[in-house]
Amino acid sequence: MNLETIKNPEFVKDCTQQELKELAIDIREFLVRKLSVTGGHLGPNLGVVELTLILHSLYDSPKDKLIWDVGHQSYVHKILTGRAGDFDSLRKYKGLCGFPKRNESDHDVWETGHSSTSLSAAMGMALSSQIKGNDSKVAAIIGDGALTGGMALEALNHIGHEQTDLTIILNDNEMSIAPNVGALHGILGRMRKANTYQKTKDDVEDILKRIPAFGGKIAATAERLKDSLKFMVTTGMFFEEMGFTYLGPVDGHDLDDLRSNIAFAKQTKGPVIVHTITKKGKGYAPAENDAKGTWHGLGPYKIDSGEVVKKPGPPAYSGVFSSTLQKMAAADPDIVAITAAMPGGTKLDSFAEKFPDRMFDVGIAEQHATTMAAGMATQGMKPVFAVYSTFLQRGYDQLVHDVCRQNLHVVFAIDRAGLVGADGETHQGVFDIAYLRHLPNMTILMPKDENELQHMLYTAVYHDGPIAVRYPRGNGYGIEMDNELKKIDIGKWEVVRDGKELTILSFGTMLPIAEEAAAILAEENIDVRIVNARSAKPLDADILQELYEEKGAVLTLEEAALQGSFGSAVLEHYHDLNQHDMVINRMGIPDRYIEHGSVPELYEEIGLTPENVAGTLRDMVPAKRQRA
Amino acid sequence: MNLETIKNPEFVKDCTQQELKELAIDIREFLVRKLSVTGGHLGPNLGVVELTLILHSLYDSPKDKLIWDVGHQSYVHKILTGRAGDFDSLRKYKGLCGFPKRNESDHDVWETGHSSTSLSAAMGMALSSQIKGNDSKVAAIIGDGALTGGMALEALNHIGHEQTDLTIILNDNEMSIAPNVGALHGILGRMRKANTYQKTKDDVEDILKRIPAFGGKIAATAERLKDSLKFMVTTGMFFEEMGFTYLGPVDGHDLDDLRSNIAFAKQTKGPVIVHTITKKGKGYAPAENDAKGTWHGLGPYKIDSGEVVKKPGPPAYSGVFSSTLQKMAAADPDIVAITAAMPGGTKLDSFAEKFPDRMFDVGIAEQHATTMAAGMATQGMKPVFAVYSTFLQRGYDQLVHDVCRQNLHVVFAIDRAGLVGADGETHQGVFDIAYLRHLPNMTILMPKDENELQHMLYTAVYHDGPIAVRYPRGNGYGIEMDNELKKIDIGKWEVVRDGKELTILSFGTMLPIAEEAAAILAEENIDVRIVNARSAKPLDADILQELYEEKGAVLTLEEAALQGSFGSAVLEHYHDLNQHDMVINRMGIPDRYIEHGSVPELYEEIGLTPENVAGTLRDMVPAKRQRA
Repeated sequence: MNLETIKNPEFVKDCTQQELKELAIDIREFLVRKLSVTGGHLGPNLGVVELTLILHSLYDSPKDKLIWDVGHQSYVHKILTGRAGDFDSLRKYKGLCGFPKRNESDHDVWETGHSSTSLSAAMGMALSSQIKGNDSKVAAIIGDGALTGGMALEALNHIGHEQTDLTIILNDNEMSIAPNVGALHGILGRMRKANTYQKTKDDVEDILKRIPAFGGKIAATAERLKDSLKFMVTTGMFFEEMGFTYLGPVDGHDLDDLRSNIAFAKQTKGPVIVHTITKKGKGYAPAENDAKGTWHGLGPYKIDSGEVVKKPGPPAYSGVFSSTLQKMAAADPDIVAITAAMPGGTKLDSFAEKFPDRMFDVGIAEQHATTMAAGMATQGMKPVFAVYSTFLQRGYDQLVHDVCRQNLHVVFAIDRAGLVGADGETHQGVFDIAYLRHLPNMTILMPKDENELQHMLYTAVYHDGPIAVRYPRGNGYGIEMDNELKKIDIGKWEVVRDGKELTILSFGTMLPIAEEAAAILAEENIDVRIVNARSAKPLDADILQELYEEKGAVLTLEEAALQGSFGSAVLEHYHDLNQHDMVINRMGIPDRYIEHGSVPELYEEIGLTPENVAGTLRDMVPAKRQRA
Repeated sequence: MNLETIKNPEFVKDCTQQELKELAIDIREFLVRKLSVTGGHLGPNLGVVELTLILHSLYDSPKDKLIWDVGHQSYVHKILTGRAGDFDSLRKYKGLCGFPKRNESDHDVWETGHSSTSLSAAMGMALSSQIKGNDSKVAAIIGDGALTGGMALEALNHIGHEQTDLTIILNDNEMSIAPNVGALHGILGRMRKANTYQKTKDDVEDILKRIPAFGGKIAATAERLKDSLKFMVTTGMFFEEMGFTYLGPVDGHDLDDLRSNIAFAKQTKGPVIVHTITKKGKGYAPAENDAKGTWHGLGPYKIDSGEVVKKPGPPAYSGVFSSTLQKMAAADPDIVAITAAMPGGTKLDSFAEKFPDRMFDVGIAEQHATTMAAGMATQGMKPVFAVYSTFLQRGYDQLVHDVCRQNLHVVFAIDRAGLVGADGETHQGVFDIAYLRHLPNMTILMPKDENELQHMLYTAVYHDGPIAVRYPRGNGYGIEMDNELKKIDIGKWEVVRDGKELTILSFGTMLPIAEEAAAILAEENIDVRIVNARSAKPLDADILQELYEEKGAVLTLEEAALQGSFGSAVLEHYHDLNQHDMVINRMGIPDRYIEHGSVPELYEEIGLTPENVAGTLRDMVPAKRQRA
């Protein structure tokens, strides 16, 4: 069928199984075709086609609530809720969001992006129904990887305790983004391998019949019985112990199996977990045979060959980070690398190949990662936790309480700092300076380019105390890399362009915009100095004093929230010294969440452009002269 | 024995069991006596006397690492490591810390205060030993309540996966601070009730013999078998499934039982969990018979009667919060209260008595609580999450990603905001303004007194969007309370003392200090205006404009980190308006962690006194006049 004619998901309820099968084929063809042009999360969505069809045929969305954990697997849901026509704009500026978005559709009842939030949200909604006495049903769809996040485990614990009426669809594809980590993953693996489904508690009898040598010679069968018990445990008792009715494993691509189990779950009182086994990339061979997670989320590709279109370019910051760390680790056995389920994104996968004993992928567990690193630091190790800016938000209390309070030498390699583009609001790394700067003992650095990144990483690893080096998503400039790593002087900034009228204090990768702005003003004979202000904490008190004494004016420039970040540090500095008349303006990220789009489009939207920077500087000239 | 003669714990290794028993009596007598004067965490420490003795007799501290989760149960450890002589200064200024402290003793290898960090720290240390190839052993002592925190579950999952060589002592006292919550608690309860210990895997045979009707009539025994299976599951299989060797339940007050099990655990390869059952308050009847958690942590008491010495005083802020919320909830069925294992501390216990269906204690799970509240808010409920300032740090990502990004109406009643006193560094609520202020859509209020608190809470509950009302630990002023709740105008501050030379912008409970400072300066004919600046976000732009136009000078005063909090907001405001010549100074909490002591002592230490405030204002006069 023409998917663009779909207005809402009600028609799915009237479809025969055969029609649904055909619809599934159409949806897969649509996704493979559309995403070959736009890019996007192909693998996860191909994996949930049948699941999404059955959910919409059994639940009355939006009265009933479907909550997509992480949310990158919500494309099929978007198609069924009337948004097929928008897929040409997927993840583009002002286009269809790659995650559920409440302002796109009434059927998107909960927005996601980060992992492991769906169970808590579902519980909140189910409790609301319970209190209000309405009959809205709630189902959360969560992957096996996301289930290992601490907050999902907290929610499981509480839901089991309260016996809240909701259904959890465990979408077990054996691989979230990277292959999964953790004991729970082992348990799921054993469940998966069980040949018999324990569909309801009545099936116990059936299972019993299959256990050999029941009775007699007890001593001899002890070991065998234990295996049998384990077999039962692994077919659901883990969750039953937590207070859930466990259904599964269910073949996540079998419409009948899905329908009967989810229908049963929906009408069962109390919490139910439906363990579905799906295949990421199902139905499109290149994605189905993906061992490395390439097809989880990607850019454009050629449909026939499955060849991913690669844009040639300079090395990515992540790559420079990883190769530099490997260089150091070869010489220093105390260096340890840590990731929270992002070995590919952080490029630590290549570190793991070289140093398998010194690389720890903790799973989706940033709290644990942060404090485990702190534990290592107490023993003289040099732990480096590579983590996306917005994911480290999960480790904030551990930063406050474990790392900074004990003044431990943990290195935070903060990747995806600043605007990230297509992933949008949930992934824009704009808060890290603000949530780190008020922590005592913390040092915060950002390099101007990839060559400075390698030196900063070296500096951070041989620093003492908590230290963060933040760097952006994407590629460097392809500049020449020094062969020898060297320490930079923390708290000493670098004048990269001389001038005397006005000074831009550029934090990290804002430098090209600063330079373009200075070039614009040079033509007007306004002489702009540019400082590579590479540490946001501590500041360079000497340079700031010189600027004050020359009766200058400064503009701070950063890719970070304007509240409490680098620019605010400069304000605080001058006023603390009673230098109240200093002329200071700040540019950065305004006080709102920034949606998806290309980074240049977003810069334009928020006014972080050379023209605007030049304009702000131009407006500062009178104030500066007045003071002089 | 005279405990003050103990220099280090080595002597414990040479003690006979009888000597240890006598030592246990001496330690209990010492604790009951000392704490009757100083106050402190009596119950938890009486519960771990035998456990601590056995740990120090089996482990070589500090080469081996003992890690105390939360840490309020480390008093016995402090006694055995040479600190008995310091107990008169327990939790007092410059005195013995109530938690492990690295600068107090080499035996304190890890500092705690917040719950659930010990497993991650222990894993970090054990991995370090593994990489460095030394033979340091690690044991973490964690309560059943702390085990439900998300980060502990993340750590369990990772430890089970990595098969890290460490021992977890599960100190199961059936009640952490409040009675525990959660499915995991139910599992532990069933384990506890099991009559037979599954001491090692070999015991399976023994258990089998006790299962009746084994063999024959399979259908008829299905149900019974399931119970038997459950029995086995509940005697350790839950943890065995996670990859742990499970030992227990062990009688935590039986030295022999403890010794044999912990010795076995220490020499077992891989992760081991020793499930010990202890009784909080053991050996002192008033604490042992404590149903309400009074004896968990308390002030002075009379030893003989067990009567707690109560200081009469005005109502506590927590009490005003809870009674106001109850008043509103009686009239509004959409109001729901949430706590994360702090029903007593937040005074929500009385709310729960009146509205059992609208009160949710989620356990130690601030991440889940925050997002569950957000889920409720999507359904039109009015969730109020009462949480200590430093514990909400655990919910930071959920604030960023779930609450503020979706602009959901969740009320955060932030208790223990500002300095808290005796609990020290880990509990000083000084970061909340800095970690909340940069979040788009957030509103941050703090009342000047308990009467304003009730109106602010009312205002917050009938606001739309995320809103935080922060209030301090301890009592209000006993002022008259209005009968009618009324809305305050968010973003409108209140002039509480008129003046014209200089203005103090006092945030919340700093008002008395501001008033005393103004009184000092009045005697010098310096005329100070005081503004009750009750919202840190948004600011009152009108008042700030008036102050600018009168060419005034302002001093901001807050009980919060100086980096990025209220004062910084004022700086940002003026410079964003190009009012660069405004004279602004800020007073608050300096950039370091503040140790324990009484709040007045801490104010003195950091210079937050009327004399200092007056001094700062006095110094501002010339700058102000210069500008004028």
